[in-house]
Amino acid sequence: MVQKEINEIGKKAKKASYELAHLGTLEKDEILNGVASGLLEATADILAANEKDLAMADKMGLKGAIVDRLTLNAERIKGIAEGLEQIAALDDPVGEVLEMKKRPNGLMIGKKRVPMGVVGVIYESRPNVTADVGGLCIKTGNVCVLRGGKEAFNSNLAIVNIFREVISSKGYDPDMIQLVTNTTRESANALMKLNTYLDILIPRGGGGLIRAVVENSTVPVIETGVGNCHVFVDRTADLEMATKIVVNSKTHRPGVCNAAESLLIHAGIAEKAIPMIGKALLDAGVEVRGDDLVCHLLTDAKQATEKDWATEYLDYIISAKVVNSLEEAIAHIHTYGSSHSESIVTSDYANAQYFLDRVDAAAVYVNASTRFTDGFEFGYGAEIGISTQKLHARGPMGLRELTTTKYVIYGDGQIRK
Amino acid sequence: MVQKEINEIGKKAKKASYELAHLGTLEKDEILNGVASGLLEATADILAANEKDLAMADKMGLKGAIVDRLTLNAERIKGIAEGLEQIAALDDPVGEVLEMKKRPNGLMIGKKRVPMGVVGVIYESRPNVTADVGGLCIKTGNVCVLRGGKEAFNSNLAIVNIFREVISSKGYDPDMIQLVTNTTRESANALMKLNTYLDILIPRGGGGLIRAVVENSTVPVIETGVGNCHVFVDRTADLEMATKIVVNSKTHRPGVCNAAESLLIHAGIAEKAIPMIGKALLDAGVEVRGDDLVCHLLTDAKQATEKDWATEYLDYIISAKVVNSLEEAIAHIHTYGSSHSESIVTSDYANAQYFLDRVDAAAVYVNASTRFTDGFEFGYGAEIGISTQKLHARGPMGLRELTTTKYVIYGDGQIRK
Repeated sequence: MVQKEINEIGKKAKKASYELAHLGTLEKDEILNGVASGLLEATADILAANEKDLAMADKMGLKGAIVDRLTLNAERIKGIAEGLEQIAALDDPVGEVLEMKKRPNGLMIGKKRVPMGVVGVIYESRPNVTADVGGLCIKTGNVCVLRGGKEAFNSNLAIVNIFREVISSKGYDPDMIQLVTNTTRESANALMKLNTYLDILIPRGGGGLIRAVVENSTVPVIETGVGNCHVFVDRTADLEMATKIVVNSKTHRPGVCNAAESLLIHAGIAEKAIPMIGKALLDAGVEVRGDDLVCHLLTDAKQATEKDWATEYLDYIISAKVVNSLEEAIAHIHTYGSSHSESIVTSDYANAQYFLDRVDAAAVYVNASTRFTDGFEFGYGAEIGISTQKLHARGPMGLRELTTTKYVIYGDGQIRK
Repeated sequence: MVQKEINEIGKKAKKASYELAHLGTLEKDEILNGVASGLLEATADILAANEKDLAMADKMGLKGAIVDRLTLNAERIKGIAEGLEQIAALDDPVGEVLEMKKRPNGLMIGKKRVPMGVVGVIYESRPNVTADVGGLCIKTGNVCVLRGGKEAFNSNLAIVNIFREVISSKGYDPDMIQLVTNTTRESANALMKLNTYLDILIPRGGGGLIRAVVENSTVPVIETGVGNCHVFVDRTADLEMATKIVVNSKTHRPGVCNAAESLLIHAGIAEKAIPMIGKALLDAGVEVRGDDLVCHLLTDAKQATEKDWATEYLDYIISAKVVNSLEEAIAHIHTYGSSHSESIVTSDYANAQYFLDRVDAAAVYVNASTRFTDGFEFGYGAEIGISTQKLHARGPMGLRELTTTKYVIYGDGQIRK
């Protein structure tokens, strides 16, 4: 039953994709700006829908960060609308032709940037993701199928309906954006098997969701995700700089994937570095879980266990360990890290280059906070997520990562000899 | 049991990948040239191993094309060795830094091209694939895990052993290339679940194998494959050119994925085009399966059924249909095609552009044979396969498609405000 319903959604999405893929930039931007206005005008309706979700969340006993992420207000709706206007203002990546070249036989061969087609996104609580994904997909000529969490269903539906009304009012097929109304686990599973219609599936949410999608999907997946990020303070580090970078990486926003979870310190500087950086962390309200030497040099540190090295706390907690060399630091990162964002603080040229070369991660930093791994900070103006896998896209994904290419070949009668 | 064995292989591969990823171009090229010499020197041993496979194939009752693909001789081994030398002579894509830019806060952000890490390949009969994949992977700094078919096991093992001997003799870890000795279905299934160690899995073989991998793999897959390719002869086509292109697309090598399987003809030119192109096809030994009008205009044509439009014959057979418009041709291609290679023959500028724009396929041609969809013909000097999916790579994949990127970020103390 659910599979049939999801199949119908997929079929409609595919059909709409042929129209959306060929809308001009102007037409797509008009939709985005129209939706931005529409959201502002419908603020009262969206807030009423959000109230329903919040009342249900209260009944379900949800609390804290989840409820915060779920909550909309006039200010947040304004922010969502502005986000769509910003996407409209970005360059359209679709249509660019790359690497056009003439072959010896006269064939002109180029790669043309084109939409993926149909993008599926499975996500949790935040209703702003609905508008963000809808906006990014329309800008890139992609039809989207959105499967949000049941806790945000009414809010998501209110937002998607405004997209659909604006699209219809301009004479296009509203199925360019569809919300899956069935929010059971079955609907998520059905989407994972929809490779006839979906070109790509992006899970956005906790580790459990991402694992389930990677394990069950027959649709190509872009894995976003887990960030067990390290800062390594090398023997030659400027300790003032190191302190600022460690504290910023840990505390600027502890609940996100590019926050640092672990501190590695070169033994040659440990005696000075650990008290200094440790105190700054403690002053910032961070619990430090250290190895023996860290605990010895920082009396308020707690003893770390093996499990700590592998933990993404997403909280005011950091693990800390002394290493005897750059190589040991890198080996530790490869053993426990999640290949997201890794930073070295050093004043040694060769060590900086060695770390950049050897660390296998989406983003590798010298002398900077891990918190910069972000589409906006990288200058992409928008972000659909941060890929921690190696295929198609790695690191922050902007508009371009929602496109693929096709070869276009201009001939004048060439046949193969 | 099998899973444990495959896990061990994966673990060794991952370990070797850290060494191989950082070998210089010179060192990698020396390995490739060394293997080329080694293969020539070991010709007698390889042929003896191949004899065993052929004897077994004979017992198993294998015949025809499979046996031909399986058969090695001195000439073929020479060709394999030359292929490795050619790969050695190509530019190394690893290490290139793309799009390095300075952000307003002074961070220098670039994308560095790096190896994928560990590449798994599941393939059938051809022993030359063993050397090709081994060569392409070493050149791109990727460790490979090869799971060939049991019918070619002895030949594959002889080839892989030469790679391993050469790698060892240069003081490197021979696990840079490993052949899975268990050739049961279980070993293929175990590889599909090895996402802890494999960064990518490429199935090379028939539709059944590719489907099984897409459906069961938790490792990111690059789908290669099925080619139900069309040539559309537009109303304004130069019929001499069209005839050559259709015959070449169909008969140059009918058993491969970029061969044309279906001919579409605009109604406005059907009366002239069908007898002319049809006769050329029949003269080339091709069976034509047409719709009513085709059969009316070409008496030796057979009646096509619905099933024919969806069939990749890989043989001297072509389906043929008259369409009333360019739009109908494109709709037919989208309904029955496999998004591989599609060609229009036309002298109309607008129709050429419209076809290039609208047809959703890996390679879209104007006035050229579909047979050009090939890494060598596109100028990549080598080919690991032809991707028919949209993620990461689409169309012919050369060395670059065996790499990914990581962001490298140079800072001088930046923290996030």
